[in-house]
Amino acid sequence: MEPASIEKCGAFVEVFSLPPTRNGSLDGLRFAVKDLIDVAGHRTGCGNPTWLATHPPAVVSAVCVEQLLAAGAHCVGKTVTDEVAFSLLGQNHFYGTPLNPAAPDRVPGGSSSGSASAVACGLADFALGTDTGGSVRIPANNCGLWGWRPTHGAVSVAGVMPFAPSLDTVGVLAADCDVLQRVARVLTAMNLPSIDTPTSDPPSGAIYVLTDAFSLADAAVRDVLQPSVDVLRDLLGDVVRESSLGEICSAPEAADWNAWLDTYRRIQAAEAESSLSAWVAETRPEFGPATRAGFEFIRNQDRTRVGDAARHRKRFSRLLQLAVGPRDLLCMPTAPTVAPLKVARPFDRGGDYYHRTLSLTSVAGVARLPQVSIPVADIDGAPIGLSFLGAPGEDLYLIQMAGQLGARSKP
Amino acid sequence: MEPASIEKCGAFVEVFSLPPTRNGSLDGLRFAVKDLIDVAGHRTGCGNPTWLATHPPAVVSAVCVEQLLAAGAHCVGKTVTDEVAFSLLGQNHFYGTPLNPAAPDRVPGGSSSGSASAVACGLADFALGTDTGGSVRIPANNCGLWGWRPTHGAVSVAGVMPFAPSLDTVGVLAADCDVLQRVARVLTAMNLPSIDTPTSDPPSGAIYVLTDAFSLADAAVRDVLQPSVDVLRDLLGDVVRESSLGEICSAPEAADWNAWLDTYRRIQAAEAESSLSAWVAETRPEFGPATRAGFEFIRNQDRTRVGDAARHRKRFSRLLQLAVGPRDLLCMPTAPTVAPLKVARPFDRGGDYYHRTLSLTSVAGVARLPQVSIPVADIDGAPIGLSFLGAPGEDLYLIQMAGQLGARSKP
Repeated sequence: MEPASIEKCGAFVEVFSLPPTRNGSLDGLRFAVKDLIDVAGHRTGCGNPTWLATHPPAVVSAVCVEQLLAAGAHCVGKTVTDEVAFSLLGQNHFYGTPLNPAAPDRVPGGSSSGSASAVACGLADFALGTDTGGSVRIPANNCGLWGWRPTHGAVSVAGVMPFAPSLDTVGVLAADCDVLQRVARVLTAMNLPSIDTPTSDPPSGAIYVLTDAFSLADAAVRDVLQPSVDVLRDLLGDVVRESSLGEICSAPEAADWNAWLDTYRRIQAAEAESSLSAWVAETRPEFGPATRAGFEFIRNQDRTRVGDAARHRKRFSRLLQLAVGPRDLLCMPTAPTVAPLKVARPFDRGGDYYHRTLSLTSVAGVARLPQVSIPVADIDGAPIGLSFLGAPGEDLYLIQMAGQLGARSKP
Repeated sequence: MEPASIEKCGAFVEVFSLPPTRNGSLDGLRFAVKDLIDVAGHRTGCGNPTWLATHPPAVVSAVCVEQLLAAGAHCVGKTVTDEVAFSLLGQNHFYGTPLNPAAPDRVPGGSSSGSASAVACGLADFALGTDTGGSVRIPANNCGLWGWRPTHGAVSVAGVMPFAPSLDTVGVLAADCDVLQRVARVLTAMNLPSIDTPTSDPPSGAIYVLTDAFSLADAAVRDVLQPSVDVLRDLLGDVVRESSLGEICSAPEAADWNAWLDTYRRIQAAEAESSLSAWVAETRPEFGPATRAGFEFIRNQDRTRVGDAARHRKRFSRLLQLAVGPRDLLCMPTAPTVAPLKVARPFDRGGDYYHRTLSLTSVAGVARLPQVSIPVADIDGAPIGLSFLGAPGEDLYLIQMAGQLGARSKP
């Protein structure tokens, strides 16, 4: 595919050229930065005009941006985000909908919509996004990219708008696994030979295929992902095992994906209210209809119950972290359905897209696990991703194994 | 000791009565909140008048405050902090120096100075502080309190001023271990019977006494802590082992405490610059002389080198996390010296107090380990604390064991 023009792509809020500060493992690579992350000298707009108007320009770049510049990468601009990171669709009321070049009639996914679009359109080799509840993984799924949500805390969030701090991560979107690996090494500070690097091949742990997660997806999604799972099984044999969330956690309450979703939502709402409500009360920002509805949902939560949600989270995350060994992987669909069609009034969208999608994405958030979505299939051209989750801190192993498995499972 | 009057104590920036929202395990306990943490309806001042004037009142309380209120605790006010959390002394240029009732001529320690003072003066049963580089542990040491820095990420920081996010924690100061345990259970969301609780007694792991850490302390500090270490050894025998940081990590570079300090300082400076420099540039705040010097230090760092510091951190934290098993503890002095005398111009203080103190405190920050300081001794009435560090996530085990060991090692 020819790179789309910057205008046609609609991914950028600002285009500029910020050269690297040193040479390194990312020499020659161009990257874009979600406009939720500081770049020195630019205002971080967070996808909302009131935010842009009520915050001063960044004096320094976020730590994650400094790491990339010092490793040789070249920054080409800042990209559209859904308002204050608050959507999985990528249709910003004020800044428009970045192009999903693989499926132009469908949404790119959000909130890292512009970062995904810029990479998918060939205007950057990789891009920084943020992922609180799926905001890197879903755009990766929709646009046919590699998308990495790191272990919570593994990549610095200094200079990144806080949304729900115990869930917030800085992740990466890339067109291929080699670039993603190199970038992940820099951001996790593992880009020195002195640091142990994963080399196992085939995996010495188990790959648990979560059949209950596949059941949550549309039949069409299951059908196009099945050949990839079959290839895994043919190649690796007994290492690949069918299981379920409840079985892996050895706890019946963990079998209920709604409980994971509910836990995620209550923590996210309470923390986002802490991060944003004083600014909302002071500036009375103009919001798009979907964002307004999101803040209404937050305000309607009972904050005195946040401790209950925190206890559920502790229980679930302990169970899953104990179950997933350092060389184990979980395998599941990234999203339950193909990317939704663009519509004029996305906030009116009926149905259960959010509920179903967050059911799948909330597991990594609740348990602080890393997750990689890899592009393996499509439905009438619209990309469908397969996800692997790993043990906390095993991000590089996860990406390396996902790369090997992805290469083999390509239909 | 009689409770000091609120005026004489000087710990509070605001006194109020915020009743609990529910009953629970903290029924009847009063707590104070460091003025870096949101309480609904109050402006969070962060120890600086320009910050106070340029930020709107909090609409909701921080998640950690909500957890305490819902567990039955009663909030009695907000406490003095060093400016934007940027000191270990507790002498705020604008809001004064909260009383250290055990040693009134000495500093209470910072930056959670008011929180320590309020508890030590009997005006609260416990208090929330924040600890990035020692800001709970050092005031606990100076005022003769129990002080807990949690595992990084174990307690929500939503609604807390971000300073250096990969190092920031919300911790607790308390007059006794029972209260600290109960509060830690609530904040780590482990206050349900369904969640496994630690019960081992005596410890099934090892207690490594870090002789090199003791060597960094004054002879007088070593002398008054020695009886507590001897009691541990008499009681527990071979479980207590003399070791050193380099030996535990099996790596010569980890034996250099200056390397840990330097790594801490460079990460902290880069992240704090990301968190605060845009606000500084926009509002040109009035700072006390010590804070001004701190920001000058930050500005003079080479940001393009932050990736190098991140790699050192990754290496050190991996080594130490691998070495400290779930039931192991490290033992060392909390601070290298008795609390400094109050002086009129603390920013002119000569000597190496900061360097020596941060050398000890930076280990927990760099490696994200939990640490508890317990009051076991004094020098001419000025309290001296002994510290235990545990494995990541083992906060409750750490506090429980520290409580048992503290009770036994009381001279």
